[in-house]
Amino acid sequence: MVERRDDVIEPIRAQTDAVDILDQRALPEHHQYLHCRHADDVIQAIKTLAVRGAPAIGVAGVYGLWLASRSLSGRPDFWSALEAEKERIKSARPTAVNLAWAVDRVWSEAHGMGTAEVERFLRKCGDALSEEERLRNERMAAHGAALLLPKSRVLTHCNTGSLATIGAGTALGVIREGYQQGRIASVWVDETRPLLQGSRLTAWELMEDGIPATLIADNMAASVMAQGRVDAVIVGADRICANGDTANKIGTYSLAVLAQHHGIPFYVAAPLSTVDLSLQDGTAMPIEERDPDEVRAVRGTVIAPADIPVYNPAFDVTPGTLITAIITDRGAARRPYELSLADLMAQEPTIHGEGDKRA
Amino acid sequence: MVERRDDVIEPIRAQTDAVDILDQRALPEHHQYLHCRHADDVIQAIKTLAVRGAPAIGVAGVYGLWLASRSLSGRPDFWSALEAEKERIKSARPTAVNLAWAVDRVWSEAHGMGTAEVERFLRKCGDALSEEERLRNERMAAHGAALLLPKSRVLTHCNTGSLATIGAGTALGVIREGYQQGRIASVWVDETRPLLQGSRLTAWELMEDGIPATLIADNMAASVMAQGRVDAVIVGADRICANGDTANKIGTYSLAVLAQHHGIPFYVAAPLSTVDLSLQDGTAMPIEERDPDEVRAVRGTVIAPADIPVYNPAFDVTPGTLITAIITDRGAARRPYELSLADLMAQEPTIHGEGDKRA
Repeated sequence: MVERRDDVIEPIRAQTDAVDILDQRALPEHHQYLHCRHADDVIQAIKTLAVRGAPAIGVAGVYGLWLASRSLSGRPDFWSALEAEKERIKSARPTAVNLAWAVDRVWSEAHGMGTAEVERFLRKCGDALSEEERLRNERMAAHGAALLLPKSRVLTHCNTGSLATIGAGTALGVIREGYQQGRIASVWVDETRPLLQGSRLTAWELMEDGIPATLIADNMAASVMAQGRVDAVIVGADRICANGDTANKIGTYSLAVLAQHHGIPFYVAAPLSTVDLSLQDGTAMPIEERDPDEVRAVRGTVIAPADIPVYNPAFDVTPGTLITAIITDRGAARRPYELSLADLMAQEPTIHGEGDKRA
Repeated sequence: MVERRDDVIEPIRAQTDAVDILDQRALPEHHQYLHCRHADDVIQAIKTLAVRGAPAIGVAGVYGLWLASRSLSGRPDFWSALEAEKERIKSARPTAVNLAWAVDRVWSEAHGMGTAEVERFLRKCGDALSEEERLRNERMAAHGAALLLPKSRVLTHCNTGSLATIGAGTALGVIREGYQQGRIASVWVDETRPLLQGSRLTAWELMEDGIPATLIADNMAASVMAQGRVDAVIVGADRICANGDTANKIGTYSLAVLAQHHGIPFYVAAPLSTVDLSLQDGTAMPIEERDPDEVRAVRGTVIAPADIPVYNPAFDVTPGTLITAIITDRGAARRPYELSLADLMAQEPTIHGEGDKRA
């Protein structure tokens, strides 16, 4: 039972009295939405990874708070109950900084209001945050596409598209825009073990958009590079240090080393909100380890002895020295990143300020 | 129902009137043998990949011819029928040069014999070829282990062990011997997509032998190298050119580039029978492409859109310039391989001659 949409991919759709969340766990076989009428439904969607990607989780969280305000409407303990809901939403994914940030931000503004207007305000905040993410992606896409030569064959990793970011995506936003402009001819998608965001999600998004894509296993990237069939690598980022060192999905660093060996430009596309100037470099960045069973099995299918020890880092760190340019919503930064990133950050009003304006 | 053995892993066990072939498709969950009483059973085992690895397939083929001679015993058309069986066995895996070579070799010697002694002779040939493979691996293991520093943490790719080679293995033979000698402390096993020979077979072999092993996804190798947790990479080879360019399981080249970047020695372990001096370098080596569904699914579990285009090369070519040493059954060769490999080849009697002696 696959429901097809006509136009763009929407991980979250706000309705008049509910929020529909695309269940990304079921992709690419099934394209179905979870109909969330209560904050609890949203919390479940976040906890079970039905919705993933920092921006998408942030937006889901704000809409979750909106649904909570609807459910609690008229109750004498409205504010204390809503605050409890806010905390529950934030703890649905404790490591998602974006989620806590987005929910706290709207909460601090809503708290002074009359209860009558809160519901409308929170809904507006969700819509505004979505729009903010969309615009951010658009700007990144424009800056990134300008770097590409005509008819480039690019390679990307993990999923950095609409499913994760609400808008066109970070790296995938650049790819979409590049394709529109004729600067991208085709895309290599690597499967991105262990959770297969490349083969399940990116492959699906590109096919939905009619962009020529070819799937490979992660260990095949070097071979297609050696054959002269990759003109650029574009990936996203989870966190970028002052010197350009970039934490991203495991496998990113491998691609950066391979790209350098083959003389292929390696681009990181990420909003400036990802840049953390308080971190000088990547050496202190902790590498989160995930459940060994993600490696021992693939979507429930066993592929290894049950008791084999596993190392399953969620991220790796790519040194800024291997990155050709970091594409942000405020322009592309180049080495030395200590200067260029600081410059871009100084130009931009604080994210908080920008968000406030639109909300 | 897992049957455990006491000592070594045997992919093929000759009985008095049959050949038991370990069904590698069912590993690591099930450790069960196919009881082959007729040549047909062996042909099926080869065709369905129950038995894999060039040396193991060669041995299986010779035992298959032995079983055929038993079934045909006493028939007036014995020789013509046996010749037909020989051709059927050879065509069970047409690309396996080793299979055709082994079966043709014993056939040419058996053909002059009285029918009474043929059966005994073919059985002896199978046993001798097994023993030959075992000795070859032992010599490689001794030469390879000598290259390793004490307590090395090595990384290996695909399966090059007992399952593929009858003996201790090529790269895995070196690892086994290195562990015995205290030169290897632990092993990183990458899963080796798409067919997972690392996670399914190598992980299993190492656990059976009690050698400390840790499984990673293919895209994690760079990260563990960057953390300083890999002291050497050891892989096998399918075919080695005069200049050391080496065709091996897809993903090998990627590891070679990564090892060079991190200053880690990269070793290839393969018998001299793998070296083809008629190929000057790897540029002309054709890269076989396999079924796209191997990438779109993992052991039957779908992981990508059904119609996504796939590139699925079976092999890649690692330039000799990235290889620290090629470990053969006659010693380790180093650059320039044009000289060192030719030297080793010149020293050794032809494989055929060596085989004849033992048979």
